[in-house]
Amino acid sequence: MSKSINHNFKRKSKPTYSPDEFVSEIRGGDISALSAAITFVESSKPEDHILANEIIDKCLPFSGNSIRIGITGVPGVGKSTFIESFGNFLTQQGKKVAVLAIDPSSQKSGGSILGDKTRMETLVQNENVFVRPSPSRGSLGGVAKATRESIVLCETAGYDVIIIETVGVGQSEITVRGMVDFFLLLMLSGAGDELQGIKRGIMEMADAVVITKADGDNLPLAKKAMSEYKNALHLFPAMDSQWIPKVSHCSALNNYNIDEVWNIISSYQNTTVNNGFYTENRKLQSQFWMNERINELLVSSFYNDAEAQKEKAKLEKDVLSGKISPFKAAEELVQKYLGEDE
Amino acid sequence: MSKSINHNFKRKSKPTYSPDEFVSEIRGGDISALSAAITFVESSKPEDHILANEIIDKCLPFSGNSIRIGITGVPGVGKSTFIESFGNFLTQQGKKVAVLAIDPSSQKSGGSILGDKTRMETLVQNENVFVRPSPSRGSLGGVAKATRESIVLCETAGYDVIIIETVGVGQSEITVRGMVDFFLLLMLSGAGDELQGIKRGIMEMADAVVITKADGDNLPLAKKAMSEYKNALHLFPAMDSQWIPKVSHCSALNNYNIDEVWNIISSYQNTTVNNGFYTENRKLQSQFWMNERINELLVSSFYNDAEAQKEKAKLEKDVLSGKISPFKAAEELVQKYLGEDE
Repeated sequence: MSKSINHNFKRKSKPTYSPDEFVSEIRGGDISALSAAITFVESSKPEDHILANEIIDKCLPFSGNSIRIGITGVPGVGKSTFIESFGNFLTQQGKKVAVLAIDPSSQKSGGSILGDKTRMETLVQNENVFVRPSPSRGSLGGVAKATRESIVLCETAGYDVIIIETVGVGQSEITVRGMVDFFLLLMLSGAGDELQGIKRGIMEMADAVVITKADGDNLPLAKKAMSEYKNALHLFPAMDSQWIPKVSHCSALNNYNIDEVWNIISSYQNTTVNNGFYTENRKLQSQFWMNERINELLVSSFYNDAEAQKEKAKLEKDVLSGKISPFKAAEELVQKYLGEDE
Repeated sequence: MSKSINHNFKRKSKPTYSPDEFVSEIRGGDISALSAAITFVESSKPEDHILANEIIDKCLPFSGNSIRIGITGVPGVGKSTFIESFGNFLTQQGKKVAVLAIDPSSQKSGGSILGDKTRMETLVQNENVFVRPSPSRGSLGGVAKATRESIVLCETAGYDVIIIETVGVGQSEITVRGMVDFFLLLMLSGAGDELQGIKRGIMEMADAVVITKADGDNLPLAKKAMSEYKNALHLFPAMDSQWIPKVSHCSALNNYNIDEVWNIISSYQNTTVNNGFYTENRKLQSQFWMNERINELLVSSFYNDAEAQKEKAKLEKDVLSGKISPFKAAEELVQKYLGEDE
């Protein structure tokens, strides 16, 4: 089977493998089967969707045994260089590492931040690392679902550390925060202007802030930035995890202090496993995603209804011109929709 | 009419006033009519709801001419003392002031932060001030709807400044942020521990941070806190309004610097009216509330369905025990719901 599906899997005919066969190949660590399963998870075709659901259900008992790390930062902060250095460090510690990405901007360009072949070159070649580009289409909700299910698949394949990369420009951080154990914010030294690209509120979600590019002339600046961030984080209220966010610095270029980042994450894991937050958080996340998906599906049924959308556009004009209150407009729309169409 | 409806309006029989009569009384500044209309807006009875909708629609053309100010801060920061001092200052400037409150905690206690008669004593007696306690029941969504419609009613009654008070302990700040022009965060000096009660991310929504109780021995501490907050705010990215959040301090006890807070708000209004954000923001808020309400109604139709909830509870157990993915569970539920019940 692993021969018939290559890494850049393109299915020409219906799959001839049963969900059970898929699961057994994935558990055996077959990269091609893993990639293929993720492709089904990302697919919008109904038949792929059914197959994906079956595979995921069968993988669930084998999932959950990784630490899931979200990494964000503005473009230019050196995310891919950091992940490359960090990923290679982890494999030296005997870990298997999967890198997934959530990049809503790729929905527009059709490309993907991880699609660039020149990025993470050594990581892609590391046999203990699995790198998967971001799905190139779909709503953030859809991408979130695909990513969360990809985590299950990667865990079933035996990856110990799952890194979810996101770009620092929007809603995607909040989405990633909701599916990881640990959220790492990469920052440049010379705080201030560089923060412009980070959505308000992101810093407060971070379990650690790490100043990148702490090398050469930049090192003193990085140390200064560290103390600034420490002061700023000090002003934020305690997290539900009881974890006090850490501030550190590193240089991916010199492999400097990369181990320290892993120490912080390990220490977080110890703390939160012991105080029960780690497990509790994952349960809450599962409930959260179930509820999110229910709401999403209920709402999308309305937004996929052409007639309802025509009505909505009409009433929206009346709302903006002050003819009708937004609440009454909403009520009229939903009443009409639920009454007429269902 | 104003005689037959008193301030603590309790309707014993059906109202004998038409929506048009209500609007004309409200426009004439009749406090009793205004209170009664807000009671309809807050009511969960279907007949009140219909009447409220009609009144709101007829008031809409007369609304929009106030500045809407959200005020938050942890319990103990001196919110009511500040609002009292600020409100009396504004009436001295010839303004009419309405104070509304959003307090989700009152849903639990059945009471209301503004229900305490000893609070804002002089403000309640000021004839140019209208103080309305928080609705004591309903979801945050319901309370938000009632508050937003109460703003329309107060504006129709000629209030120039609408203050929406919220407690600094949850989702309510985000709700209030979405219905005001200006968001004011009150803070205590000696930053750090006092922030524990403020939800992460609130500080980043503030158009101004004002340190309260800047009197006596506290004054130097307040000034120190000011510079700390200035530094912290400097780390946050620019706001959509292009407004740079201001940090100030005041003492409601001594009526010290209360005028400065109003200067900041006026300056904000000038800036954002000129750059177009003020109007644009209100339009976006209207669209936001329409969309929010549509989603709310779609989702509540599901959550009000007893059969669907029984199914959900069953599947949730399977999700938490890892038998089914949260996404597949959601799908099964919504399919069954939309297929069976409608």
